[in-house]
Amino acid sequence: MLQNAFAIHGDIVWSKSLDQLECVPDGYLVVVGDQVQGVYPQLPDEYQGIHVEGQAGHLVIPGLNDIHLHAPQYAFRGLGMDLELLDWLNTHTFPEERKYADLDYAGRAYDIFADDLLHSPTTRAVVFGTMHVEATELLMDRLEATGLVTYVGKVNMDRNSPDYLCEKDAASSLADTRRWLDNVERKHYQHTRPILTPRFTPTCSDELMAGLGQLKQERGLPLQSHLSENLSEIDWVHGLCPWSSCYGQTYERFGQLDGDGKVVMAHCNYSTDEEIDILKRHDVYVATCPQSNMQLSSGIAPIRRYLDEGMHVGLGTDVAGGATLSMFRAMADLVGCSKLRWRLVDQSLTPLSPAEAFYIATVGGGSFFGKVGSFRKGYQADILVLDDSGVRTPLDLDPTLRLERYAYLDEEGGRMAQKYVAGRRVL
Amino acid sequence: MLQNAFAIHGDIVWSKSLDQLECVPDGYLVVVGDQVQGVYPQLPDEYQGIHVEGQAGHLVIPGLNDIHLHAPQYAFRGLGMDLELLDWLNTHTFPEERKYADLDYAGRAYDIFADDLLHSPTTRAVVFGTMHVEATELLMDRLEATGLVTYVGKVNMDRNSPDYLCEKDAASSLADTRRWLDNVERKHYQHTRPILTPRFTPTCSDELMAGLGQLKQERGLPLQSHLSENLSEIDWVHGLCPWSSCYGQTYERFGQLDGDGKVVMAHCNYSTDEEIDILKRHDVYVATCPQSNMQLSSGIAPIRRYLDEGMHVGLGTDVAGGATLSMFRAMADLVGCSKLRWRLVDQSLTPLSPAEAFYIATVGGGSFFGKVGSFRKGYQADILVLDDSGVRTPLDLDPTLRLERYAYLDEEGGRMAQKYVAGRRVL
Repeated sequence: MLQNAFAIHGDIVWSKSLDQLECVPDGYLVVVGDQVQGVYPQLPDEYQGIHVEGQAGHLVIPGLNDIHLHAPQYAFRGLGMDLELLDWLNTHTFPEERKYADLDYAGRAYDIFADDLLHSPTTRAVVFGTMHVEATELLMDRLEATGLVTYVGKVNMDRNSPDYLCEKDAASSLADTRRWLDNVERKHYQHTRPILTPRFTPTCSDELMAGLGQLKQERGLPLQSHLSENLSEIDWVHGLCPWSSCYGQTYERFGQLDGDGKVVMAHCNYSTDEEIDILKRHDVYVATCPQSNMQLSSGIAPIRRYLDEGMHVGLGTDVAGGATLSMFRAMADLVGCSKLRWRLVDQSLTPLSPAEAFYIATVGGGSFFGKVGSFRKGYQADILVLDDSGVRTPLDLDPTLRLERYAYLDEEGGRMAQKYVAGRRVL
Repeated sequence: MLQNAFAIHGDIVWSKSLDQLECVPDGYLVVVGDQVQGVYPQLPDEYQGIHVEGQAGHLVIPGLNDIHLHAPQYAFRGLGMDLELLDWLNTHTFPEERKYADLDYAGRAYDIFADDLLHSPTTRAVVFGTMHVEATELLMDRLEATGLVTYVGKVNMDRNSPDYLCEKDAASSLADTRRWLDNVERKHYQHTRPILTPRFTPTCSDELMAGLGQLKQERGLPLQSHLSENLSEIDWVHGLCPWSSCYGQTYERFGQLDGDGKVVMAHCNYSTDEEIDILKRHDVYVATCPQSNMQLSSGIAPIRRYLDEGMHVGLGTDVAGGATLSMFRAMADLVGCSKLRWRLVDQSLTPLSPAEAFYIATVGGGSFFGKVGSFRKGYQADILVLDDSGVRTPLDLDPTLRLERYAYLDEEGGRMAQKYVAGRRVL
């Protein structure tokens, strides 16, 4: 008998392909170490005797991966969405992020954020911090303690930002970044990794962009930023970088899309053909954030096209452009917004289905972390056990329909019974 | 001292006007009988000694009015939103509504619906049943027991419906309606009233429409139906009623907008100038249902225009086109969809603010029931007491901001502590 093996018995559902679910009702998900061994209708002979978590009647699905959100903005979630992106940053976001120079405030805010993220359906996340080194390390400490797997970025911003939230120059921004990376290396986190984080082109000088591109390649680091979120932002980038023919080029030019580390760009609501070519050439992940794009009046990303082009697409809550950490809500919003885009903008792009949204939230974003988001053999055992008995109905529904419903109703009678990351139970 | 008076002490917020909130933090809402007496920073001398509900730190707001939803569709909420309206009706909705011929099934389903509506933020609702007289009475019995105030309609449909869910002809549909109305009258409900409910023009013959118009005027009854929800539906109506120059005319022609009883039309996503004139001429209420219009790919209603035209606008969840009974969620969706409409369709119509959505959900729909939706003196005392301490933040927020946030996060740490309808505590 395997010492480090266990099984979960329940109604097991995961993505077989972009638009198809695999379902084993009343089945056994076997985990060995940190990996999925397989899903079986009966527990195979070789696993007889391992610990079995009895979760009959509960849904058992892969964890959800939130590949774009801002930890310091969580404090004002659900507020201040009266403006478009650029005014929203200056009026609501920058004044809040400024507070993270104060470690006492940062501690209070990040305690709440980390605890709520732990209790959310998210198992892995790609997270923006602020420009402050110490607060970003504090955030990483807090996230490490949750057992969730995260990439966390100290933000770089050395221009076009208010004095109170602007790094002195490229050299000091880069020096702070190296200091932060060195500190993080010494901490030997198990679950928490650094990611380079130029805020977005408007707030980063060419010298800073070039320095970060060099650092990325030098240390093989991943990188996250924002791309083509809002029409005024795109105009501004064209003005700041008159040599660029698309916003995406402003990252490519400085080597930020090269090197071993993966890259995730949030939004991509208005990417041109040329920008899409750049994203494809460098295997960039698109983090689509439908709720944020609604609440900040940004628009709706053409996700169907990105899928048809074979691009990497993951899902983000973009807290606090999005109000909630719920990736189930993000899935429902992704489907709904794709329908409005079909109706109002472009009937050549068919709406996304709930199964496709589930794929994007699991496998789509999961692959940013490696073999993550599936119950196929060898995948990291990230698991949610969901009790949906509180969503009452006289209907007798199969597990795939219960999962579809859960995306719309997770907080209305749904309850997370257990949560595992890489085979470790975190909740 | 007044025997039938009490006060609630808390952070009191209500709509002063369409876009402005009135707020008395740490104040006293005084109720006498079924009506609001006033809101005061301190308890006035003449009320010293009345019972005071201590709800310090909790939000105290008017109840929310859901003026369009389908009780029999609640069983499949969150499911089957893969189709547009007409196919969705045939594939998902009609097969479900058929089941309500079976009173045992209806009882099980409506028990859940009524209990969940009681626990929702809704204090008053305008509800579709099915075409079945007995099941509709059962629904009314269940709703009466909750203490919520509702209008409930037995649905009329005598054409273009599947055999299993179609009344034989106009005469039998009208006879059933009269029988239902007579039964209801004998029951002497305190809180539950009948409303005439032609499903929509496509499923109602001219004879039936005329008969219902006559009945409406004869008995002074209110009436609810659907209008200009979906483009294919509108085309179909034009084909069925070639004499009409707009969909709204198909109700007007048969006298359904005349008489003493108020009229509510759900959706109005594509109302023409002529249709808007008809709605204004007859003081018709528009029930806007943003989540449903997203999930069924219908579109986004031009609510700003209707407000500018001085029309009556209320909000509906449209369960199960909408997945949830939460009117807070409907408020957030109303704001968000108005932003997408501004961005994607028509920049002449400014997006709605959270304060405006709150007005529409309280006063806007409330006036369908009389003096409802405000804490001004003489209004019906419909009250929600909300505990938002579970929505954790390091920020110190005033009550109006906490209310704004609650609309986005009600089910994520929010809790309804108490609920009153017309001065009666129901929860």
